[in-house]
Amino acid sequence: MAKEGVQIGLLGLGNVGSGVMQVLSANREAIAAKAYGPLEVKRILVRDPTKARGAAVDPSLLTTDARDILGDPEIDIVCELMGGLEPAHRYVGEALERGKQVVTANKELMARHGHALLAEAARRRQDIYFEGAVAGGIPIIRPLKEDLAANRITRISGILNGTTNYILTRMAADGKEFAAALAEAQALGFAEADPSYDIEGRDAAYKIAILAAIAFHTPVDVERVYHEGITRVSPRDIVHARDLGYVIKLVATASEEEGAIDVRVHPALVPTGHPLASVNDVFNAVLLHGDAVGDVMFFGRGAGSLPTGSAVVGDLIDVARNLRFGATGRVACTCHFNKRLREMAELHTENYMRLLAVDRPGVIAAIAGVLGENQVSIDSVVQKGAQDNLAEIIWVTHPAPEASFRAALARIAELPVVHEICSVIRVVR
Amino acid sequence: MAKEGVQIGLLGLGNVGSGVMQVLSANREAIAAKAYGPLEVKRILVRDPTKARGAAVDPSLLTTDARDILGDPEIDIVCELMGGLEPAHRYVGEALERGKQVVTANKELMARHGHALLAEAARRRQDIYFEGAVAGGIPIIRPLKEDLAANRITRISGILNGTTNYILTRMAADGKEFAAALAEAQALGFAEADPSYDIEGRDAAYKIAILAAIAFHTPVDVERVYHEGITRVSPRDIVHARDLGYVIKLVATASEEEGAIDVRVHPALVPTGHPLASVNDVFNAVLLHGDAVGDVMFFGRGAGSLPTGSAVVGDLIDVARNLRFGATGRVACTCHFNKRLREMAELHTENYMRLLAVDRPGVIAAIAGVLGENQVSIDSVVQKGAQDNLAEIIWVTHPAPEASFRAALARIAELPVVHEICSVIRVVR
Repeated sequence: MAKEGVQIGLLGLGNVGSGVMQVLSANREAIAAKAYGPLEVKRILVRDPTKARGAAVDPSLLTTDARDILGDPEIDIVCELMGGLEPAHRYVGEALERGKQVVTANKELMARHGHALLAEAARRRQDIYFEGAVAGGIPIIRPLKEDLAANRITRISGILNGTTNYILTRMAADGKEFAAALAEAQALGFAEADPSYDIEGRDAAYKIAILAAIAFHTPVDVERVYHEGITRVSPRDIVHARDLGYVIKLVATASEEEGAIDVRVHPALVPTGHPLASVNDVFNAVLLHGDAVGDVMFFGRGAGSLPTGSAVVGDLIDVARNLRFGATGRVACTCHFNKRLREMAELHTENYMRLLAVDRPGVIAAIAGVLGENQVSIDSVVQKGAQDNLAEIIWVTHPAPEASFRAALARIAELPVVHEICSVIRVVR
Repeated sequence: MAKEGVQIGLLGLGNVGSGVMQVLSANREAIAAKAYGPLEVKRILVRDPTKARGAAVDPSLLTTDARDILGDPEIDIVCELMGGLEPAHRYVGEALERGKQVVTANKELMARHGHALLAEAARRRQDIYFEGAVAGGIPIIRPLKEDLAANRITRISGILNGTTNYILTRMAADGKEFAAALAEAQALGFAEADPSYDIEGRDAAYKIAILAAIAFHTPVDVERVYHEGITRVSPRDIVHARDLGYVIKLVATASEEEGAIDVRVHPALVPTGHPLASVNDVFNAVLLHGDAVGDVMFFGRGAGSLPTGSAVVGDLIDVARNLRFGATGRVACTCHFNKRLREMAELHTENYMRLLAVDRPGVIAAIAGVLGENQVSIDSVVQKGAQDNLAEIIWVTHPAPEASFRAALARIAELPVVHEICSVIRVVR
């Protein structure tokens, strides 16, 4: 039987898979015109074929056996939308071995095994496209690999997780505590029943590791990427930060200096005038700096069935163009280097610190003394009204070695006048 | 003599050409790694070969004869950076005829002749890339053609001209009159000695016509694109707009409804919370809406030697990849339709109107009466303090047919109580 157009096997029909089916069906003709022929979904791997699906899916396409897709020589592109490491990793590897092109939206897979998979695909002149793995529908992988390819990228910072951004936005707007804002996000479907993946910063760590690898041309060991979540951010910190001219965001950053890279995710005070400061609710944004282009920012919906579907189908169209022109493997892996990942202790950071101390003369001097001994200089210090004989004191430091600041922090915690160090949050400019 | 890498002929070595040379030289090795070999500039067409150039340019590359480039069979890519219509158009046509790939940053060329050139290139399976023609270094052409290809785009709005955005930003921040802000922009090199191209909105019209053609898959007759500049915007309007919750920007918009398109450039009141409202100084931004992706925004430097150089060299790398894989023509023209361009008179617009009228009872009623008779309903009306027996009255209408509003306007101007209609500016949401 002669094939018409490009034949696709879908692995997974959850949230993203359904979005892909919906986009393919809604814009079928325009997509066929751009892809030089229709994109046909030939088979879909699902766990439960009896589960009710939207009208867009013909039940006869469903299978529970991955071999129906991986072993079908007519299938040109395997589109992996299962998420998680296994069996996704095994299936993608097998798809490559069998000469199929791959499109995936799996950030964990690409963050952990992207380098090996891309290298293998490059050897075979096959494609692995993964625009949907980072920032949902926002174009960022292809811009880095193509539009901005002429630049030396020096820095990327982003809001890459919609769940935490929604929670922080609600906390800032309504004065809600973290737990209440999380519950609201869960009720609205913006947070999972088990939210740890998002709120601990792991999701954002996968994404920034992927972006850093492309931008800095090096594999990044995501296991070693520092990540800290938002569970300890309190509405009090948000208010104090605002008074000082900052908002609090979960920021993912990556930068390169002298051949070593710094990649991390943590809550951060961001100046209110900063382009990321006004990115609210579930929106994502990626800001980057290239030596030629200067600052560029990309903004949009970083998750969701249709936005991620937009990215995945964009990839499918591009791979179809490559197939048509015999040009798969055209944009190969660009990890030409192996750059060292800096430890947090090596970095220079600015820090916001909120503490409760005995309300008595000499307390600020004592704390400032410890900071000074550790070569941490102070940008601003504000004492807020005292209660129960305890004063709330807010500090913002100038940039100092993270190790020095942490050493000072340990000493400050031991000062008899210090009741509690309530929170410490880094500043990102 | 065997060629090494990809051979490029540059047409023009002005602002953008110098930026291209600088980027190629600064990131030479990384670019060669991505392009599967070095990008070599073999010849550069200039008007005056004796003019002093930066150190990056070997004088022996310069020629005043375009045939040295167009007629050289070793040159793979002709990179047109002369600007203007002729001889750029003739040269690009000849380059295509001779089987060369083309990269250009020429918005006027692409807005006027893009459709014919792209169709010819598609027939020949050759490339014309033009990322630098719109919004400088900001990726937007390739995202529209590739990343967002799965979407039905319904609307694009953008700040596409840095000169006018700088002028409006200065007027808003310092209360400067237009002429003073223009003079400042000229002194800083942000505006040309003859600024009419920018301040009359023609530059932005070329750019939005190009974006609309790609987004809506149709040729756009740029001669028929409505454009209105910012020369009549006064600091008074900026202040009143602010009081009402708007900023004034030169906005380029394009949208599609029922198979017809609306493409235009004019000053507009934009709500302060709108993503374009905070785009200031020489920055550009493009906001678009796709049925799958939702709202996406791209932000960065829309002009300048290095940002535009970034876009042009990104294109050169991409074409080099196509050459390596024998895949030129891979992303062909996507103007599969011929959609009607709506006339302004057909559109529904919201309008801000500032007028001076005799300060006497019944005046607002008289003006409101005329608006009502023309089916234009009023969103808000504010009377500001009177002087010399004249009151300043600010109106904002609800959406109404542009033709009805213009009819009302003509009648209002004739009312005996109306002294002067000072300004009329559309609202864009």
